[in-house]
Amino acid sequence: MGRVLYQIPGDMCAGPLGAAELERRRTMLQGWAAADTIVEVADSPGGPLSIESHAEEAASVAPTIAALRRRAYLPDAIIVGCFSDPGLAALRELFDCAVVGPFEASFHLAAQLGTRVAVVTILESVVPMLDRVAWGLGLAARYAGAAAIDVPVLELRDDPARVAALVVEAGRDLMTRRHADVLVLGCMSLSFLGVAEHARQGVAIPVVNPAMCALKTAESQVAQGLRPSRRCYASPRKDVLTVEETR
Amino acid sequence: MGRVLYQIPGDMCAGPLGAAELERRRTMLQGWAAADTIVEVADSPGGPLSIESHAEEAASVAPTIAALRRRAYLPDAIIVGCFSDPGLAALRELFDCAVVGPFEASFHLAAQLGTRVAVVTILESVVPMLDRVAWGLGLAARYAGAAAIDVPVLELRDDPARVAALVVEAGRDLMTRRHADVLVLGCMSLSFLGVAEHARQGVAIPVVNPAMCALKTAESQVAQGLRPSRRCYASPRKDVLTVEETR
Amino acid sequence: MGRVLYQIPGDMCAGPLGAAELERRRTMLQGWAAADTIVEVADSPGGPLSIESHAEEAASVAPTIAALRRRAYLPDAIIVGCFSDPGLAALRELFDCAVVGPFEASFHLAAQLGTRVAVVTILESVVPMLDRVAWGLGLAARYAGAAAIDVPVLELRDDPARVAALVVEAGRDLMTRRHADVLVLGCMSLSFLGVAEHARQGVAIPVVNPAMCALKTAESQVAQGLRPSRRCYASPRKDVLTVEETR
Amino acid sequence: MGRVLYQIPGDMCAGPLGAAELERRRTMLQGWAAADTIVEVADSPGGPLSIESHAEEAASVAPTIAALRRRAYLPDAIIVGCFSDPGLAALRELFDCAVVGPFEASFHLAAQLGTRVAVVTILESVVPMLDRVAWGLGLAARYAGAAAIDVPVLELRDDPARVAALVVEAGRDLMTRRHADVLVLGCMSLSFLGVAEHARQGVAIPVVNPAMCALKTAESQVAQGLRPSRRCYASPRKDVLTVEETR
Amino acid sequence: MGRVLYQIPGDMCAGPLGAAELERRRTMLQGWAAADTIVEVADSPGGPLSIESHAEEAASVAPTIAALRRRAYLPDAIIVGCFSDPGLAALRELFDCAVVGPFEASFHLAAQLGTRVAVVTILESVVPMLDRVAWGLGLAARYAGAAAIDVPVLELRDDPARVAALVVEAGRDLMTRRHADVLVLGCMSLSFLGVAEHARQGVAIPVVNPAMCALKTAESQVAQGLRPSRRCYASPRKDVLTVEETR
Amino acid sequence: MGRVLYQIPGDMCAGPLGAAELERRRTMLQGWAAADTIVEVADSPGGPLSIESHAEEAASVAPTIAALRRRAYLPDAIIVGCFSDPGLAALRELFDCAVVGPFEASFHLAAQLGTRVAVVTILESVVPMLDRVAWGLGLAARYAGAAAIDVPVLELRDDPARVAALVVEAGRDLMTRRHADVLVLGCMSLSFLGVAEHARQGVAIPVVNPAMCALKTAESQVAQGLRPSRRCYASPRKDVLTVEETR
Repeated sequence: MGRVLYQIPGDMCAGPLGAAELERRRTMLQGWAAADTIVEVADSPGGPLSIESHAEEAASVAPTIAALRRRAYLPDAIIVGCFSDPGLAALRELFDCAVVGPFEASFHLAAQLGTRVAVVTILESVVPMLDRVAWGLGLAARYAGAAAIDVPVLELRDDPARVAALVVEAGRDLMTRRHADVLVLGCMSLSFLGVAEHARQGVAIPVVNPAMCALKTAESQVAQGLRPSRRCYASPRKDVLTVEETR
Repeated sequence: MGRVLYQIPGDMCAGPLGAAELERRRTMLQGWAAADTIVEVADSPGGPLSIESHAEEAASVAPTIAALRRRAYLPDAIIVGCFSDPGLAALRELFDCAVVGPFEASFHLAAQLGTRVAVVTILESVVPMLDRVAWGLGLAARYAGAAAIDVPVLELRDDPARVAALVVEAGRDLMTRRHADVLVLGCMSLSFLGVAEHARQGVAIPVVNPAMCALKTAESQVAQGLRPSRRCYASPRKDVLTVEETR
Repeated sequence: MGRVLYQIPGDMCAGPLGAAELERRRTMLQGWAAADTIVEVADSPGGPLSIESHAEEAASVAPTIAALRRRAYLPDAIIVGCFSDPGLAALRELFDCAVVGPFEASFHLAAQLGTRVAVVTILESVVPMLDRVAWGLGLAARYAGAAAIDVPVLELRDDPARVAALVVEAGRDLMTRRHADVLVLGCMSLSFLGVAEHARQGVAIPVVNPAMCALKTAESQVAQGLRPSRRCYASPRKDVLTVEETR
Repeated sequence: MGRVLYQIPGDMCAGPLGAAELERRRTMLQGWAAADTIVEVADSPGGPLSIESHAEEAASVAPTIAALRRRAYLPDAIIVGCFSDPGLAALRELFDCAVVGPFEASFHLAAQLGTRVAVVTILESVVPMLDRVAWGLGLAARYAGAAAIDVPVLELRDDPARVAALVVEAGRDLMTRRHADVLVLGCMSLSFLGVAEHARQGVAIPVVNPAMCALKTAESQVAQGLRPSRRCYASPRKDVLTVEETR
Repeated sequence: MGRVLYQIPGDMCAGPLGAAELERRRTMLQGWAAADTIVEVADSPGGPLSIESHAEEAASVAPTIAALRRRAYLPDAIIVGCFSDPGLAALRELFDCAVVGPFEASFHLAAQLGTRVAVVTILESVVPMLDRVAWGLGLAARYAGAAAIDVPVLELRDDPARVAALVVEAGRDLMTRRHADVLVLGCMSLSFLGVAEHARQGVAIPVVNPAMCALKTAESQVAQGLRPSRRCYASPRKDVLTVEETR
Repeated sequence: MGRVLYQIPGDMCAGPLGAAELERRRTMLQGWAAADTIVEVADSPGGPLSIESHAEEAASVAPTIAALRRRAYLPDAIIVGCFSDPGLAALRELFDCAVVGPFEASFHLAAQLGTRVAVVTILESVVPMLDRVAWGLGLAARYAGAAAIDVPVLELRDDPARVAALVVEAGRDLMTRRHADVLVLGCMSLSFLGVAEHARQGVAIPVVNPAMCALKTAESQVAQGLRPSRRCYASPRKDVLTVEETR
């Protein structure tokens, strides 16, 4: 439904995976998309190579805004291509279209499938970041916590089978100790690794793939003609220039 | 995406609107649906004529289950055709498909558009019911409350223009006194009255139409291959027979 | 204090225990009652044989309403004879007397005896139902969760001594892992099995028997002349007919 | 049911109302009591004349403990005769019997009659005290706040009709602005003024009289054989002597 | 910054540690103080020897008020010298200066260092008291719970090295099972035992010493010219006399 | 106590106030500081001229990090010189010193002065940003909301007397309608305008100046030797480069 832009807030082309990975992700997303949806994938030059800390989140937002501003036209929906939704509110203020965050979208969908939503993420250090996002969404009551498989983003593709097994193990632990009954994959790179299906079989509860979920949420909002509330996300009064643009 | 059944938990054919209203709603839903979605609308013989109280909610669930059981085949998704989501958990236990509640789906979508979600509903007496649904979902932090336009379900179609004006008035009051920044129409009959667009213009914040939102959420879940968690909604151990079926 | 009706929402007479169990429960309740209280016990023809799922809860409410409506006179208080309080709000709307739910009453009493209230129930599948009741009551902060002994309702009487031991075991686990300091027996059939006293000795913290507690709460409300708030539980505007009554 | 002691934490005999007021309250309570309940009323020499601040609460507990220790025998239940429940936890640690707090008992009963419980109290300065009690009970979700009639305890009896009218006015304001659907009288002296019935008629929602409610709760706990959890309210390891006793 | 009075609510001079301990604590506090701060330490004759229960808390407040009233002049800030902050609100009502509670001050500082604040205290029986303080502060969301080392206050000085090891052990358990990322020492006697530094090394997360933190918070409030809100802590309308003073 | 750096996340030197305003603020802060504290004030070249939206917040973090990295030495404490604490978590990850956020510090101090903390800020559009910060801190229970005086940051100095009057007006409204009993000035430019004292007299409840409070909190943390928990704010695994640094 409409044009959906999956905007990676990092500088993927500058990293080891390069432009080929953008195209690979676009192909996967387009495969998941509705017949009348056109998916585009872009990255944010000058952003971090991967986002595993608040600091990298912070370093990603200005390049993302700059990249979006350089575009010739606005899509119908922007998906923030990072699970912890960096810059989500800022993009909602600045751009007149739907803006979808994978964490937010996945949590709200997962909460319709069960009672206690847990997240399987990559690094222990990311857990407090995710906790804070869940709290900030006012969803603490439904949040069973996050657990990490302890594999950095850039090493995920070295051994997908091992990653899948680790996701199942972490998911089972969240089920036993935190009473989780729905899981969300807590990293976009996990989303494109093809482990969700394996994980579902391993844990026997729903496992939400945040990339697919964000895409479907974007399509849903576009179809409904819904955009962020300007009462909540007011357009900035004065022009916001990012570092890149001031040069 | 797939076959979506909009199951009205009341006995619409026995009421003043009759079977024509079922067909009218089906046409509207089909018009909102994706290209590859087939919408069916059914009611629940023996259910209440409208649902405006906990008592009517309670009276609706057994007829709904019975009606669903009499069907020859299961759809890919069932939408509970009543805003307060009566029987949602029961249907999730009993049927192996996606089951979508309009309140739940609308609230979770609205929460992605703003911070404080409010509901404009029909009768003051419904407000505590909605409060309880919001609380039971663990969403109290995002819930700005509900307000009523004081028009019973079966009188809504007498004067749609007046209803639209009342919705705007109630919405503005929720914005002023409860700090709402997103609205949800709190009654399915409002959904099919064509007032959402008028209301959006009147309040200048997003207004979620729960019928359209439930449809899009059903399509989204079907596309993602997601169903309710059996850890949360276990299949009943023994056969559950409803009154109609025991005869 | 007054006439108290313990209304079983299931069709006990149609089940293996039959009418004799109604009389046995009446005798126990009358034995617990104040001198000026008359206890009556009734079941709900057409309701489920036992209630262990949302689906069975849903199937129980219409038969309960129908059974109550067939009565010649209204009691001073109705106790919903099922721990998860099915139909509680509906009955409050429909009948002009006190209406007591065993979960609600037991939780509110237990919260006056300690800080963290936990429930020992019968089946794992019931746990999410109880979680949702506790949340819906706005009592999440005091709720330490529920644990199951994994014995179905209809098998409880096969070996009461084993059941009592399992209750103690589950209770101790809730004390250790969830920091519970008060327990509630989470099933009415447990209430009439005589295990509360044994359990109290086994766990050394208070154990609330929900049948006895509901009776005492009913007596208390009748003595105080208190009934449900009509601002919260409004009388339905139009007559609510259940399936049985429409035939 | 059993012996119930209504222990006023202040020094009523030293105040303007004197011992006659103790006897008057005992007569009222005995009139509300079950047939097999014996009510006793005592005050706490050395305690404050009335309790309208945290400071007076604090000044009341040691005299209350001392008064209770001087007694020849322990009752089956102690009611703390002050609405904000001063010393409730301390008494539960020290005495092996049921201990009932009027605020706690009234709130937990009121929450079974409606959804949003509000309190009508005497002085604006008491409101933050009551807020804190409600929060400390983990009941914030059900608490609609408190409002004051602005009449000090010791002036309540000057004009009961005016007090009743002020209670109705404050209650209506709580209904309109805070969406209250159940009220609790927030001062024990109001309880014994005979205004509850008048207030109920004026507001048309339930009004809980905390003295009557505390009595019925005490009877209920005694009948159920329930006492405070020693896991929550442990007996002090060493003897606790109050100032009076150390002399 | 100014004159800070550390007011022990117990009768330390009457206990085994005696007046020497007051002087020892004063010396430690003065060593931690800013250059322009004068620290005074006093105890409360007639108060308990140590505070390990609600009952002892309750027994401490009147002697504390009496001791403060006997003073010739008011300091700029009073620190309640007991971790569970007994009498905090009462002192704020009665005295026109800053009044600091070690639990409150430590929790609010700890919450600025991490996400989940846990407390290591002395006795298991104190845990529910601390839970209640944390809840009453509205800080449940940030509270990871308390754990006890099971050493009574008056035995802490027998073997400080063992106490330090036990603190580390309890802290690690809170990190593992409750996901704590900041610790607070939950007893003032622990504060003056010199174990905080050892504990920090053992757990590798921040450990807040409540005595030092209360002192710094007092200095901060004095420097900012801030005192308790009279809207929250109103001066009592009539004079509050404690038992000692009425003689 | 130690070296405290007040780091403005915007590019003040590039704005209308220029470098003179940095020096003016430094002088004010140094005047509030303890005798052994050295205050430095710096801005962040390339950051926004003022911060009144999520977008400007986002645009400020990378320049702030870059500015801090260019420094020759690290201070003992960094204060984020913007009320909504942009980049707080990122700075805690990246720098080995205390990092203080004015919102966080002011809220935690205000919560020790009263029960319901409200914020008076500059623009209506900032209110949802502040709501989200308060929620994300888990402090919703103590947060009475924010109100705006509707004056942009860069116009505040045009008429300080009018600003002060508007602050009092907004504060009184928060007291009346939101039951606030403590106020926080919700903008750093307000902090340096000298209106806090006037506001205190106008509202008769405490008014926290966030600049002064952040300074005192920084001094307090430095004195206690406390730094952010590395369990919560882990050091990024790989080097985080900002846009400026990658060129």
